[in-house]
This record gives sequence, structure tokens and C-alpha cells, in this order.
Amino acid sequence: MDRRQLFEQIKKKESFLCVGLDSELAKLPPVLRESAQAQFAFNRSIVDATAPYAVCYKPNLAFYEQDGARGFSAFVNTCRYIRDNYPDMFIIADAKRGDIGNTSRMYAEAFFKDGLVDALTVSPYMGRDTVAPVLEHEGRWAVVLALTSNPSADDFQKQLMANGSPLYENVINTSKEWGTPDNMMYVVGATRADMLAGVREMVPEHFLLVPGVGAQGGSLEDVAKFGMNKMCGLLVNSSRNIIFADAGSEFADAAARAAAGVQAQMRGLLGKYL
Amino acid sequence: MDRRQLFEQIKKKESFLCVGLDSELAKLPPVLRESAQAQFAFNRSIVDATAPYAVCYKPNLAFYEQDGARGFSAFVNTCRYIRDNYPDMFIIADAKRGDIGNTSRMYAEAFFKDGLVDALTVSPYMGRDTVAPVLEHEGRWAVVLALTSNPSADDFQKQLMANGSPLYENVINTSKEWGTPDNMMYVVGATRADMLAGVREMVPEHFLLVPGVGAQGGSLEDVAKFGMNKMCGLLVNSSRNIIFADAGSEFADAAARAAAGVQAQMRGLLGKYL
Repeated sequence: MDRRQLFEQIKKKESFLCVGLDSELAKLPPVLRESAQAQFAFNRSIVDATAPYAVCYKPNLAFYEQDGARGFSAFVNTCRYIRDNYPDMFIIADAKRGDIGNTSRMYAEAFFKDGLVDALTVSPYMGRDTVAPVLEHEGRWAVVLALTSNPSADDFQKQLMANGSPLYENVINTSKEWGTPDNMMYVVGATRADMLAGVREMVPEHFLLVPGVGAQGGSLEDVAKFGMNKMCGLLVNSSRNIIFADAGSEFADAAARAAAGVQAQMRGLLGKYL
Repeated sequence: MDRRQLFEQIKKKESFLCVGLDSELAKLPPVLRESAQAQFAFNRSIVDATAPYAVCYKPNLAFYEQDGARGFSAFVNTCRYIRDNYPDMFIIADAKRGDIGNTSRMYAEAFFKDGLVDALTVSPYMGRDTVAPVLEHEGRWAVVLALTSNPSADDFQKQLMANGSPLYENVINTSKEWGTPDNMMYVVGATRADMLAGVREMVPEHFLLVPGVGAQGGSLEDVAKFGMNKMCGLLVNSSRNIIFADAGSEFADAAARAAAGVQAQMRGLLGKYL
């Protein structure tokens, strides 16, 4: 899916919601937990319930690898289910891979073959070699970690470099030359609105994938105010607040209500800032 | 396996060789390629052939994920085979994971449950939150990317910070406080001996996992000279030069010869520098 198509979906659905499929086994509703395909069954219900309100799904690989080969199958089956039933949905494999050359090429192949996902999150520490093989896949995206919303983002990301800018700004300024706004996005945590505004200045056209709204403390209003561009340019992720809105058998209905609530807020913000 | 036990193995085998199981499907010998369990069959033969000369195996997850759930099974089966048949072997899952909190905890669980591997490589970009959950597993190790041997290590790792030191030195100096030489190692590329010497000064007791000898251009003599400490403190990885030493049906014998050659060199270096 290209940038224009993504923007079309955002306008059509009046939403820039990305639902994070952090489908941790131990948190699945008891009614599903015993099933051999519990994660896939859960995801299918969540996707069916939330698809009207979302433009993107982001399965987090850790929660599938936790269950070994079976978990990996659940991940693949989930992506295929989305593709088959909601072909206009953007899918991000949140794997935060950060390797190089041949290895990075393998990862890209693993996630992009048969069009399984649209985008892959990558960690920039090893430099361009990590991102380049992803960009070799026409029409696919690298989502580069820039500024994350966890406390220890301070350890390195926010440390100043010799040029006076923090590392995450150097990562953005260097890496934006490797691709284009049509095949690169950035992960930018929403914990501080001023930083989001600074990132938007550096990459006016790129989409930003924003975690940390809700559970991790950012405000959706601030994200829209400081982060939105002419093509929206935002995918705001929500995981647990939606998929685990109810811990019991009503999980799908509760997820739908939670997603609808976010979407209603997003509709207002698109009207205000787009 | 703890540091003392690892050092015992190094002395016993007169080797600090880590064999990288980068078992790319397309490169497997034709005789195996059609088998449903080609990667596992290949790895089993490689392990049996090289175990006398190595103290460590390092399966690279990318090459297994490339084959989806089946590949993940091949990874798990390989680790179990090593555990069952060579219980004194150190196993590193080279996954270069870099996520946080709950996600990082899932990764650690995925790789450490049932004692599958001893160590997990992690990317430090997101800071302490990435490493901490790995260190919660008693007796397991985090192998932190510090200085890699790829060309684009220059993009960020070697860039100077405001304190006058390159990023990779800051990563080492900050992260060494998170654990101990008994549960943390560093990945340090071997392309420049002076940098290895500098790292050894910063972390005199830690083990260093050194890729980039041979194929990527470092010299084993230099690595030993500048990197060895009183407990050896080195695991030098070789992947393709060993596992793909012969592309045909003689692959196992060729791998044994290649590993034996490296081991002979290492025996000499242990005599000289330990």
C-alpha cells in the first residue's frame, strides 16, 4: 500500500488508528486460551470487531515468538486473514529488527514474501545497512525507531551528539536520505509534544507511527496538533487499551467500543487539524 | 552456563570458536535442500562435525524466520539437539532484539524457556529497558551490540557524542552498569584492532563476541592480542567460512576441516596471550 492509498483510507474511515496486536497468551480470554489456535482466534475476533475503526494493524512479533513455531503460524495466519478480508488495511510487522546485509535481507524476505505485511519496524543502531534491504522491496516500508516512549529512551536516544542535537534527531536526519516519505516512516513516542513538533519539522512529509498514547501517557490532541501534516502523516497505535478492554468473553465487543471511541476522537481531530 | 564454566570449556578445547549457524536455505547442499527438515538436518551434521573444535553455536534467527513456522522449529530443534548431545556448549540466539518492558520480557521467555539458549543478542537503541528483562533470567546472558563490523557502523555507532566519545563507547560505559561480566557480553567487530583495545580497557572482564574475522576482514591474531583477558574473554564467530566451506555433499567434512584449522590457530593464540 502506498502513501496516497493510506491517506485515502484515513479519509474514508476518518481514523488514523493502528491497533497493536500484542496478543499475549496469558492475557487471552479464558474462553479462548485452551484452543490450539488461541492467538489466531483472538486476533480474528479483534480484527473483525475493530476493522471499521482502524486503518492499520501492528502485530508485535515478541508475543508470537513467545509461543515458538505455533506462535509464528498465528502471526502469519493473522496477517493472511487481514489481507483476505480487509485488503485495504495497512499491516506493520513490529519486529524491531536490526541486522545487516544478508541477514536483514532474510528478514525482509520473511515478512514481505507473498505480500504478508506492508511494513517492518527496524532499529537503526547498525546504520543504513539495516534499512537498505527493506527498501529494496518495491511498495514496502521501513519503520525506523527514532524516539521511543519508554523511560530509558534517555539512555542513548536523547543524549546529545557532538553536533549539539540528540541522537534521535541525528538518526532521523541521516536516515531520511536513505529512502523517501513513500517507503519510510518513523516511530516517535508521544510522551513529549515539543519533541514531536521538532520531528515534524525535520520530516514534514513522512508518516509517523506514534505509540504511547493512552497507556504510556501521551495526549491524542497534542499528537494531532503537533504531528499532523497535509496527508495526516500519523498512525497512532493503541494496543492493550483496545484488545484487552475486557478480559472475559465480551472482549470483541469491548474492543469494538474502545476502538470506536478512539476513532470518534480522531474524526474530530482530522476535522480540526487536517 | 556461567563465565567460569565457559572458560573451562575454552581451556579444555583450546578454542574460543563460535560457529555461526547462518543456515540460509538457498545455500544448503542440494542433497539436503528437498528434505522437509533441511535446516535442522544441515545443522545437526554441522554441529556433529564441528563440536570438537568449538565452544559455542550462534544460530542467526533471520535465516530461520525466513522459512516461517517451519524455520522456527528448525531453530528450536537445533538448540535442543545441541543441548542433548553437547551439554557443555554455549548457545547464543542471534536475534538482535531491541524492544522494551513486556515485549522484551516475552522475547527473553521465548528464548530462555526450557533452557533453550544461554544468551540473546540485543540492540541497545532503546536503552536499559531492552536489556533488563533478559538479565532477570538467572544464569542467562545479554549480548549487547556495541561496535559492529558492517560499513554503516559509521552512521551512528562511531559518531561522536557531546562528551567527545563515539556512541558505541557510551553504549558500553552506560550499559556495563546494568549487569555484570557474568551476565553481559558485547558484540565488538574486529575490523579495527585499536578499537578492540579501547573496548578491552573499558570492560576488562567482560566476554566479547567478535564477528568479522575472516570474511569481514579482521585478523584473529590482532583480536587475541588486543582482546584477550585472563579468562580468554573472547568468543570469535565464524559462519559461512565454516558451514559453507563446501557447497556439496562433503559439507560436513569440509566444515570440520575449516573449524579444526581455526581451532589450531586459536590453540596457538591461547598459548601466546592467555
